[in-house]
Amino acid sequence: MKLNSIFRLLVITAVLASPYFASGQPPRGPYVISPKVNADKTVTFSYLAPNATIVLLGGGQFGAVDVPMTKNADGVWSVTFGPIKPDIYPYSFKVDGVTVNDPANVYLFPNERFKGSLVEIPSDVPAIYALKNVPHGTLSYELYPSVEGSTGTIVVYTPPGYTKEKSKKYPVYYLISGTTDTEETFWKVGKVNLMLDNMIAEGKAKPMIVVMPYGNPMAKIAEQTGKDKPADVTSRDGEDALKRMKLFETDLITNIIPYVEKNYRVITNRDNRAIGGFSRGGGQTLRAAFNNVDKFAYVCSYASYISPAEMDKSFTNITANPAKTNKDFKLLWSGIGTEDFLYKGTTEWEAYLKDKKINVKTYAIPGGHTWMNVKQYLNETLPVLFK
Amino acid sequence: MKLNSIFRLLVITAVLASPYFASGQPPRGPYVISPKVNADKTVTFSYLAPNATIVLLGGGQFGAVDVPMTKNADGVWSVTFGPIKPDIYPYSFKVDGVTVNDPANVYLFPNERFKGSLVEIPSDVPAIYALKNVPHGTLSYELYPSVEGSTGTIVVYTPPGYTKEKSKKYPVYYLISGTTDTEETFWKVGKVNLMLDNMIAEGKAKPMIVVMPYGNPMAKIAEQTGKDKPADVTSRDGEDALKRMKLFETDLITNIIPYVEKNYRVITNRDNRAIGGFSRGGGQTLRAAFNNVDKFAYVCSYASYISPAEMDKSFTNITANPAKTNKDFKLLWSGIGTEDFLYKGTTEWEAYLKDKKINVKTYAIPGGHTWMNVKQYLNETLPVLFK
Repeated sequence: MKLNSIFRLLVITAVLASPYFASGQPPRGPYVISPKVNADKTVTFSYLAPNATIVLLGGGQFGAVDVPMTKNADGVWSVTFGPIKPDIYPYSFKVDGVTVNDPANVYLFPNERFKGSLVEIPSDVPAIYALKNVPHGTLSYELYPSVEGSTGTIVVYTPPGYTKEKSKKYPVYYLISGTTDTEETFWKVGKVNLMLDNMIAEGKAKPMIVVMPYGNPMAKIAEQTGKDKPADVTSRDGEDALKRMKLFETDLITNIIPYVEKNYRVITNRDNRAIGGFSRGGGQTLRAAFNNVDKFAYVCSYASYISPAEMDKSFTNITANPAKTNKDFKLLWSGIGTEDFLYKGTTEWEAYLKDKKINVKTYAIPGGHTWMNVKQYLNETLPVLFK
Repeated sequence: MKLNSIFRLLVITAVLASPYFASGQPPRGPYVISPKVNADKTVTFSYLAPNATIVLLGGGQFGAVDVPMTKNADGVWSVTFGPIKPDIYPYSFKVDGVTVNDPANVYLFPNERFKGSLVEIPSDVPAIYALKNVPHGTLSYELYPSVEGSTGTIVVYTPPGYTKEKSKKYPVYYLISGTTDTEETFWKVGKVNLMLDNMIAEGKAKPMIVVMPYGNPMAKIAEQTGKDKPADVTSRDGEDALKRMKLFETDLITNIIPYVEKNYRVITNRDNRAIGGFSRGGGQTLRAAFNNVDKFAYVCSYASYISPAEMDKSFTNITANPAKTNKDFKLLWSGIGTEDFLYKGTTEWEAYLKDKKINVKTYAIPGGHTWMNVKQYLNETLPVLFK
């Protein structure tokens, strides 16, 4: 006990005396590098926990389900996993049953709930979302006056050259992230900025502005007023869910679009406005587009749908006159993974639209409800917007 | 075993069937709201862990050191702590000995190592860094060509009205974050953007652009080339540390400043260029300023210093002719907390400068090596820049 106390004192003293002890972090042991992506596309994950009994790697999206790690003499647990198919994946560690992200990795998945770390396995031919030596756009965080007196945040991608140009105006893609994701997820995980940088450099996509709102204004209201945050896990068609949808739509139409059109050089007609989203953001996309046909000519649903029952109840304006709808929407696009838990609902909705003679461009690929798939949906849709 | 397998299958099915299961997060139990700031400035922290044996709250900067939490029937551990002095603090949970951040809280401390959550306790009179109903500036993330062929990231604050103005040019403050912090820390934790929004609205600070680099270009180089990241914990005057300082200085002078001056409407003379930083970023600030007297007229060191030995060895250009130095630097500012572990070194450096007849404006307040203190240093220095 006594020796142990002296040892602890020495450790504490050493840490406090270290001129590189920055703000607030716990004492650090051996310097851990994690993740380390190896040339053969295996990845070595490491985690410092001298006193843990069992440490597991969790990265279900690349097949790592509770993979045991082993401890070295310094108390660092590690495992080399793979080779892993090149992509960007979330992962975490389970330390004696407790899920933690990787303290050695600066890249986190922005999310209200899940706090996983991100690892990118580069491919031999640089991926569509790779950081390449091309002109880069800018991502701007803007505070804007949002619903119920709250202040919202949007992230705005402006294409390369936006600053240099003095009068050129651009079309705008409003891109809504899913449940529990934030206004940062579409770029920090979805890499929409790098994808557009690459596509614009190759002449594959039109230079455009992308506006990424935070799809859950209720959370900001709660935060800024001290109200309780409403639960995000409610039934899909429940009152809370529909209220959130409506609140977001109000925010988009009455606050976000006017803010963007006032502060950015954008073309302000429906032919130069697109809307898209993933998961709940896809549901918000479809409702906002169907309720505001005068606003959006391009509509992209990434792994989401509206049930035929809700379509029949709320969106006969879309189905009553297919010729008009098919003229209104220059693109109505629906993408889904065949292993996505929303696959059945999505394909039913697609069939419903086709049965009603509504042109919907459908796209199905392997994969689940993941951001790996979202990047593929972006890759299909970004090049066809505003053309 | 068999029952267990069936149970796992049921859980997996239930999770996948949930229409609100977003990308990648683990199964969620009861909806947890955390942190909840109460009217009396206590805070209720909660964490879901039905199977944990002991859960502790860790928030040393507000006096919460391993505070035991208690579990309710739903498996949610919680504790109400405080009242807490209004400010923004990092915190975490220790779950059966494993440090984790708060999965219910979207606000994280951007850092290479530490991944704490952030809680803000508002004060009755809104704080200097509070989100107020004033015009807001914009934060832009820019990718720029950095050292050794890598691509760096800077975050650029432009003041309210920057976009509307077509030709007005602004002074620039280069603001360097500390060891293991990132280009995001000065705004996500330091709130420099909101502080400037408020000060500009009140006429207390000049409208300015703030450029926030990532002070550790070696990490980006390693990431982008597949090289091992160099350890960040080295001796203060070690070869690695000095190499990093020099590399950062090269990046700043040859890449970052030219990039900013090409892409933003900035005034390009030394009287309209300031540099400041916290901790290691303060050290980088002082070396960059002293090595490039032609570049910066305002120099702010937040909790950092250069040892008299290094001054004597490397910076006699500063001390040899105090009259010139005092004319060159319109401001040489040094702030430190009396409980900061760098307090002694900083005061020795300040005394050294004074002994050499160099005008240094010193500022000492209670507090440690924290971002609470950094906000106070910003509050002292932002209003006197470029005046």
